Amino acid sequence: MADSISFARGAPSADIVDIEGLKEAAVRAFDADPAGVSGYGTAVGYLPLREAIAQKHGVSADHVVVTNGSMQADAFLFDELVTPGDAVVVERPTYDRTLKGLKERGADVRLIGLQDDGIDVDELRTELEGGLRPTFAHVIPNFQNPGGSTLSLEKRHALLALAAEYGFVIFEDDPYYDVRFTGEALPRMFDLAKEAGPGREGPNPELVVYACSFSKTVCPGIRVGYAVGEPELIKALVARGVGAYISPNMVAQAIVHQFVSGDRYPAALQTVKEALAERSGALGTALKEHLPQATFVQPEGGYFLWVQLPEGEGHDCATIAKEAADRGVQIVKGTDFLLEGGENAFRLAYSAVQTDKVDEGVRRLAEAVEAAKG
Amino acid sequence: MADSISFARGAPSADIVDIEGLKEAAVRAFDADPAGVSGYGTAVGYLPLREAIAQKHGVSADHVVVTNGSMQADAFLFDELVTPGDAVVVERPTYDRTLKGLKERGADVRLIGLQDDGIDVDELRTELEGGLRPTFAHVIPNFQNPGGSTLSLEKRHALLALAAEYGFVIFEDDPYYDVRFTGEALPRMFDLAKEAGPGREGPNPELVVYACSFSKTVCPGIRVGYAVGEPELIKALVARGVGAYISPNMVAQAIVHQFVSGDRYPAALQTVKEALAERSGALGTALKEHLPQATFVQPEGGYFLWVQLPEGEGHDCATIAKEAADRGVQIVKGTDFLLEGGENAFRLAYSAVQTDKVDEGVRRLAEAVEAAKG
Repeated sequence: MADSISFARGAPSADIVDIEGLKEAAVRAFDADPAGVSGYGTAVGYLPLREAIAQKHGVSADHVVVTNGSMQADAFLFDELVTPGDAVVVERPTYDRTLKGLKERGADVRLIGLQDDGIDVDELRTELEGGLRPTFAHVIPNFQNPGGSTLSLEKRHALLALAAEYGFVIFEDDPYYDVRFTGEALPRMFDLAKEAGPGREGPNPELVVYACSFSKTVCPGIRVGYAVGEPELIKALVARGVGAYISPNMVAQAIVHQFVSGDRYPAALQTVKEALAERSGALGTALKEHLPQATFVQPEGGYFLWVQLPEGEGHDCATIAKEAADRGVQIVKGTDFLLEGGENAFRLAYSAVQTDKVDEGVRRLAEAVEAAKG
Repeated sequence: MADSISFARGAPSADIVDIEGLKEAAVRAFDADPAGVSGYGTAVGYLPLREAIAQKHGVSADHVVVTNGSMQADAFLFDELVTPGDAVVVERPTYDRTLKGLKERGADVRLIGLQDDGIDVDELRTELEGGLRPTFAHVIPNFQNPGGSTLSLEKRHALLALAAEYGFVIFEDDPYYDVRFTGEALPRMFDLAKEAGPGREGPNPELVVYACSFSKTVCPGIRVGYAVGEPELIKALVARGVGAYISPNMVAQAIVHQFVSGDRYPAALQTVKEALAERSGALGTALKEHLPQATFVQPEGGYFLWVQLPEGEGHDCATIAKEAADRGVQIVKGTDFLLEGGENAFRLAYSAVQTDKVDEGVRRLAEAVEAAKG
């Protein structure tokens, strides 16, 4: 079979990870704080990193918990907030592990459509007016996974106003914020909530809990993420951390701390962003050439592009994925990101596909789409 | 106040951790396998470390899951095995986090007495004959936490025979195995179960799930532990890992792999064992001098010594702990390791107290015991 080309996993290829920088950061971490790095530490996370994150987000350290990847923060948050039967709003489509985590905890998962500028706020408002009372709304505001779209500023304000009016929390799940490669960064809802805004008379910091990760800016294998929120909620997440693992990985968190505060970091991040820009650009170009019938949002950052084939042509993403695999190309089928529908869609991760492989991958994918028609 | 001397936390002091060795291991880890270390990996753990652990325990890799500390393996195991109301046997006293984890999951926790040579097998047999049907028995066979005692070979066989007869699993929780500093190592129940034994006609590998940790041999901040068991059970634990964190820490696991397979490891481990031997010896001597009324098992390894004051003298460990804290000495009160009783006992961790501080710490502690009498 031809070389394998994987558009499946949302991860950077190793060639854009600053391995030399990580080695240096590891040595500095042990040198700077041998007792702190080698000891148990506490479930709040490695203290110097926690402090740096708090400063970045303009809060005191008691607003921050640093976890073993942001997935672990998600898991603690779901455990803390979801009682079986609770309504929870997510985007349609959304990250498959979010769907899975919520369903496993017995949430009544309510999917609200995703548009090119983010979640359909009108659809959400209609549902709320109709009686929906979610515990929280999970939103991936930047370069959504899998949709690739970014929530507009107007909608960020609108979501906050709805959260304030109907009394739910916004879980702002934002792992891709720092890997924007084009366009202007939009303010986080976490920050907007600190001030009054349209439809809200005063600050409402309690409306947003924010999660982020170093998987995209440092590397996934380091497994460091975090949540920022009101101290009471963070305290509850920390207690769950104590029960699960005593403390998260001090060695890894200290390496992250040294890496992101080190001299090499700006250049390392620039390398990642340039590679992602190039790969996503090549992917868009190749799709237009080989799969002209497909529609997609060209992302301004992040890892993913969501490909939609025309409705009513009987596409079946499972068959397409199989035909693609037979041609050495891995994709994730659209149905994985939804509770129903998605048969005519699939997700492509460009983060790990070197630019010179993109065109060949899409060419084979187009063959697979054709073959899947039977 | 005088210098603080903490006998509270079961952790090594930083001076006996091979920081130079860890730095070198970190550099080797990134050099040897940049893609494997920086990427997500899978929930089974870092593959080369998993393979090394499997070899150490004489099983194939599908018997092993490597986790973020053995606490995480415990948590997954409890989640997998405990249905609310299930009877679970533990030692009396036992590790406070084990008690907590089991109670949180609704287990009917049944404590069986701990003797100088381990769990009271006769008491357990009587309970089983009386109808007790536990899902599993949690046993810390070597240098028990908090008791300090080691399960005799005879009792290891007897436990296996009971497990076979009454159909329960032995959860052999063994983080201290490699930090034995005197006496002969006893075979693991996990290994004994692979062959026939007294009261058992054939091999019963399904009877034991084994957990261990690198916290005691490398350092706690690295947060790497593992479980070994039948592939079906391990697969279920791996699935829980995927849901909780996608994958454990690849960077930390690769550092552990390089560290324990490296040239410096034997000497590093010897340093730890010598320090523990010296500290525990000094603690035993100081107790005999300053608290002659106390009884304890002098451990052959591990971190802990369990101090029992005479019954019927109205001791209250909470007051003793408070009086000790007022004198700059931290201990953990006996009641933390039990569901009832333990007021006349406390746990001393000698792992972090340098030898020249031990005598002074115990002298103050004896004052605290005296003061607590009121």
